[in-house]
Amino acid sequence: MHNTRFPELDTPSVIVDLDVAEANIDRFQAYCDQHGLALRPHIKTHKLPGVAQYQIGKGAIGITCQKISEAEAMIADGISDILITYNILGEAKTKRLRALADRVNLRVVADNSEVARGLSRAFADAPDPLPVLVECNTGADRCGVANPEQAQDLAAEIDALPGLRFAGLMTYPPSGRAPEVLDWLQNAKTLIEGNGMTVDTISSGGSPDMWTAHEMPLATEYRIGTYVYNDRSLVARGTCGWTDCALTVLVTVVSVPSDHHAVIDAGSKVLTSDLIGLDGYGHVLDRDDLTVDQLSEEHGRIRSAGAINLSVGDRLRIVPNHACVVSNMLDHVELVRGDKAIGPTPVVARGQVW
Amino acid sequence: MHNTRFPELDTPSVIVDLDVAEANIDRFQAYCDQHGLALRPHIKTHKLPGVAQYQIGKGAIGITCQKISEAEAMIADGISDILITYNILGEAKTKRLRALADRVNLRVVADNSEVARGLSRAFADAPDPLPVLVECNTGADRCGVANPEQAQDLAAEIDALPGLRFAGLMTYPPSGRAPEVLDWLQNAKTLIEGNGMTVDTISSGGSPDMWTAHEMPLATEYRIGTYVYNDRSLVARGTCGWTDCALTVLVTVVSVPSDHHAVIDAGSKVLTSDLIGLDGYGHVLDRDDLTVDQLSEEHGRIRSAGAINLSVGDRLRIVPNHACVVSNMLDHVELVRGDKAIGPTPVVARGQVW
Repeated sequence: MHNTRFPELDTPSVIVDLDVAEANIDRFQAYCDQHGLALRPHIKTHKLPGVAQYQIGKGAIGITCQKISEAEAMIADGISDILITYNILGEAKTKRLRALADRVNLRVVADNSEVARGLSRAFADAPDPLPVLVECNTGADRCGVANPEQAQDLAAEIDALPGLRFAGLMTYPPSGRAPEVLDWLQNAKTLIEGNGMTVDTISSGGSPDMWTAHEMPLATEYRIGTYVYNDRSLVARGTCGWTDCALTVLVTVVSVPSDHHAVIDAGSKVLTSDLIGLDGYGHVLDRDDLTVDQLSEEHGRIRSAGAINLSVGDRLRIVPNHACVVSNMLDHVELVRGDKAIGPTPVVARGQVW
Repeated sequence: MHNTRFPELDTPSVIVDLDVAEANIDRFQAYCDQHGLALRPHIKTHKLPGVAQYQIGKGAIGITCQKISEAEAMIADGISDILITYNILGEAKTKRLRALADRVNLRVVADNSEVARGLSRAFADAPDPLPVLVECNTGADRCGVANPEQAQDLAAEIDALPGLRFAGLMTYPPSGRAPEVLDWLQNAKTLIEGNGMTVDTISSGGSPDMWTAHEMPLATEYRIGTYVYNDRSLVARGTCGWTDCALTVLVTVVSVPSDHHAVIDAGSKVLTSDLIGLDGYGHVLDRDDLTVDQLSEEHGRIRSAGAINLSVGDRLRIVPNHACVVSNMLDHVELVRGDKAIGPTPVVARGQVW
């Protein structure tokens, strides 16, 4: 039974159980160590420098950020090895990137010439070239060059540009398609090496396939974010169980308007509208009969097919569908260890989209 | 053609065109004046004290907040008449409420005895009783007493509790069902008056039905939030047009991976996953052929059935599905008037869920 009281905490609160988070980090680090995988966790899930430091202390080779502002927040706390997996565009951003690269070990990605040329303009006079990985679309259809031949061309272009150095390949792979991803990356690597270049880094990742990460031995590093907290989407995929979920939302029942529904004091401003293919907006711990069937900004509606069996003032703990977006909603999360509340901590890299 | 460049602004930025917002406020205030309706705008959409002051300056009788922390933010800027349309529960919150009620004209709602008794405990020794409205479920099935008889009972209970005064009825009505809502509220009013009590305030609201608000003459005040910015959901309902949308998201195309899709630098951390029954995550101004078909946290994917006709570095302006939740995502919005950027302003009441 989870502690759903925490009388010292007001609701709604986003709670992070450090015991659970540390166990999650330790477990996957052990898996990576066993398989000789280099782990580069994505900080988007926790946005907390302290957790990033813990990950590095346990053996992570560095961190992954999506935006420069996230990297800035982490560097301010002493993190010194960062891959930014984003096309960085525009002089305002490339100047900030240059300022960071002069201080820490920084690498970025590009999937097109415009981005590469912009990076080159900012780094042409840098003391050391900026390492740039080519982002590859291996099937997830977000960013990435479309095929290995384009990867080869962009790698050559990057290596020829002043201030840049081609450093390898990066992909955000589709889940469950490791053989195709492996083929794609192997073909690109062969083509690029045929040009007389080396492919130092091949960076892959993704939480859903974390326990089969070793099935793509070509990857030299693995990026993963959600594993530190886990969430309802990963429980639904069988990646973890409810007791592995480190981030929960503590809420209070504020209304019980009928025998079959209740209203809690957390809506989309805490739980978010992310469904990720699921029904409902979260899992109520220790109450498998309940569904969170509707959210407005400050209200969440709880339903039961049977009697709701809740009273006004009751507290519940909810595992959200998607932990990463929930940790972006409030300025602070409440740290706990089991039943013991430790105190709030600022979500330092919250809302950093630049 | 909207200005999609704003070279002084980095992307993604949430832009608020004050000319458009002021015109929206002026237009609905004129409608309320014409029909003798008292307007009590909900600040959840803008979360900006300056806009609330503008609304009051134009004739609004006060503001609506959902949470005490929102009210605290507004009171700090001098707003002095607030209705909090939320069941406020727990001593931590009722104490804060009491501190505010001693300073400004504050009213709250309740839909159950536990909330009323908690309010009474905090206000039993207050110099003036706290005015409490009974929240009524007239069909939206969120909070609210279930029927007029329950409203009568709760009104009597509130009026008998130390420190409280029954002040009227409040509902968040279902859209398009004014006759049923009117019947419900009239029945409750008749029952309560039959007890020898007066029903001073009947508070209704909702943006979708804003232009037919006068069809419920029983309401003494109208609460409305989204009208100040408007959004894609209200354009879809025919409530306004694209040129009436004051809040837009300025984005940059960071990748064009195929002839039919592009990727922008705003994902769910700016646009949010709110669909509100729509397909896609926003409307690209001046490009009706495009859809925002997929969001991850920092990437938005744009699709076209035909040629995408976008280049890396292009800027777009997007009207989000739901303006209120977007203004909650970033610490600052960028104020503009037409083509002229004014500067950033902090979203003072952002993330205030307590």
